[in-house]
Amino acid sequence: MKLDGANLMALARGTAVLGAGGGGDSRIGLLAAQQACEEHGPVELVDLDELPDDGLLMPCGLVGAPTVSIEKIVNGSEGERLRELVERHFGREVVALMPAEIGGLNGLQPIAWAARMGLPVADADGMGRAFPELPQSTLNVAGISPGPGFLTDERGTALVLHADSAEWLERILRRVTEEMGGLAASGDYILSVAEARSATVRGSVSLAMRFGRTLMEAQSDPVAALVEELSAHRLIAGKVIDVERRTTGGFVRGHALVQGLQGDAQRILRLEIQNENLIALEGGEVRASVPDLITVLDSETADAVPTELLRYGQRVMVIGFPCDPIWRTDRGLELAGPRAFGYDIDYAPIEELHAVAPV
Amino acid sequence: MKLDGANLMALARGTAVLGAGGGGDSRIGLLAAQQACEEHGPVELVDLDELPDDGLLMPCGLVGAPTVSIEKIVNGSEGERLRELVERHFGREVVALMPAEIGGLNGLQPIAWAARMGLPVADADGMGRAFPELPQSTLNVAGISPGPGFLTDERGTALVLHADSAEWLERILRRVTEEMGGLAASGDYILSVAEARSATVRGSVSLAMRFGRTLMEAQSDPVAALVEELSAHRLIAGKVIDVERRTTGGFVRGHALVQGLQGDAQRILRLEIQNENLIALEGGEVRASVPDLITVLDSETADAVPTELLRYGQRVMVIGFPCDPIWRTDRGLELAGPRAFGYDIDYAPIEELHAVAPV
Repeated sequence: MKLDGANLMALARGTAVLGAGGGGDSRIGLLAAQQACEEHGPVELVDLDELPDDGLLMPCGLVGAPTVSIEKIVNGSEGERLRELVERHFGREVVALMPAEIGGLNGLQPIAWAARMGLPVADADGMGRAFPELPQSTLNVAGISPGPGFLTDERGTALVLHADSAEWLERILRRVTEEMGGLAASGDYILSVAEARSATVRGSVSLAMRFGRTLMEAQSDPVAALVEELSAHRLIAGKVIDVERRTTGGFVRGHALVQGLQGDAQRILRLEIQNENLIALEGGEVRASVPDLITVLDSETADAVPTELLRYGQRVMVIGFPCDPIWRTDRGLELAGPRAFGYDIDYAPIEELHAVAPV
Repeated sequence: MKLDGANLMALARGTAVLGAGGGGDSRIGLLAAQQACEEHGPVELVDLDELPDDGLLMPCGLVGAPTVSIEKIVNGSEGERLRELVERHFGREVVALMPAEIGGLNGLQPIAWAARMGLPVADADGMGRAFPELPQSTLNVAGISPGPGFLTDERGTALVLHADSAEWLERILRRVTEEMGGLAASGDYILSVAEARSATVRGSVSLAMRFGRTLMEAQSDPVAALVEELSAHRLIAGKVIDVERRTTGGFVRGHALVQGLQGDAQRILRLEIQNENLIALEGGEVRASVPDLITVLDSETADAVPTELLRYGQRVMVIGFPCDPIWRTDRGLELAGPRAFGYDIDYAPIEELHAVAPV
């Protein structure tokens, strides 16, 4: 399938939904992808089965604080520089790019880079959503080596980092990203197509596009159409009454409060944020948590709102829906469950939470 | 000349003098070099004229805060890892190591690494002293490209960094060093032997050894013998009455006060510190400043005291002596004069300061 024009718009709306508040503002990724496809032609979206087994695949995206990505724009050449570093290191050609995470602008940025290089993009990603940290990848769950890590910025500063764990890669790359101004482009978990077939969330680019189309094509109530398609749970319909947000340590951290409307005015849902919406709490009870997805939709436009754009007074619908099954394995929860983010909370699948406590 | 046993001891005492308080505690470097030479045999000290013109030379040393180097010891294999990264990047073999700076433990660490690899060490360095920051190298003054930079730590984390200036290399490598715990091993300004012949301070390893021998062989007053050999100026003989030292941002920063003895008890000399002794002030007047060297000698042992080991009550002689002429050029002063360290002070050569204001 060719990616351009209309399907990029659908993709952007879908990656925002799958971002769970993170991955950066999809509209910025959309502009970058549209411009690159206009200048260099459309990008081929390919299934991993269409690529050669031993071809080198480059998962890539932006790393840093989404608040910074609004102001500090990439210059477009980051992907080529990452590819050069990767090909020089491995001594082989990259056959396709892949989003490291499908969520937010990171679901689109690799398309912008691929257009400039005439490379295809694989219909898969390493998260099935967005997560803030490098170890939180299905490639890590599957045992793919995360390193060496490749990082570059808009100035052309670039590095190749060897470390013995995803955690050390994350520590060092995060500090470098901070020094680069809070946002950089990275490629990690470089792997072969054969390895990727069982280590990624497959079809996630197409899936995001389908969700986007659902929103765009709904006749009357796009939120309802999306909720039905996602098998999502409505956590609250309300108004943002408080947002606390700090750009610190290479992340956005904070919380937001959403108060119910009309008859629900006594209800307040609290969202805990680290780039993504991590946990939804109501009256001290967990209503949804990582690795399941918590997405805030604008009540009027049905656009998913990234955490860096949440603002006082916004009318929103907060929904929760199940993550890819790989995150519910022991290793998946170890890397991306509530405790991985420092919360002393046991994970319970969102459908169980809402089977016993209907909204 | 073979480096081992006795001449390593002389070298250590000399590099401490040339450290101007920085470059790390020479005794730690001495222990590392002695152990490596015992296990792997002595290291050949070679003049740059003895090496092939197109041979690859690896300037190297430790980077970070000297306070950390007392507690966080290298594991010995850092040099081999740097060499691997360098040879892989340039596709050529390293023919010799060279101290990036002759001052302090960094005048000895390359010898410890070279012993393990059976490589010679070049009789030259990139500072003729110690300086805290990567741009402050004669190689930079001479227009040698500082990058790519190579960095590793005792855990094996390792990186290759491409940047468009020495300042950006310094910024990024300093942050990574901090994240590695405050101390790391680096190789920068990788160059050919032919380039090194006009871009380094030549003979500085031999020179340090000669200063060390002067201290060791003096019959009665080693401080006097050293002062004469260095054409140094005695800034004060006194007692350390205050030390303020912070390990911050990958450096040691602070100051020390030295009060004169007996008839000089009304005199107080203030030393401004960033790893090295940068500036000596008395009554608001500059008595010596970078790039000239300010070295604190223990009054009893005549050992040069690194800034991280200055302590209340120490009896010391503070001396100042001229830097290598390259630092007195416009470009040298731009990189390593008082203003490069944030002091609003014009540089005056120490011999001029003391011609008009005799001590």
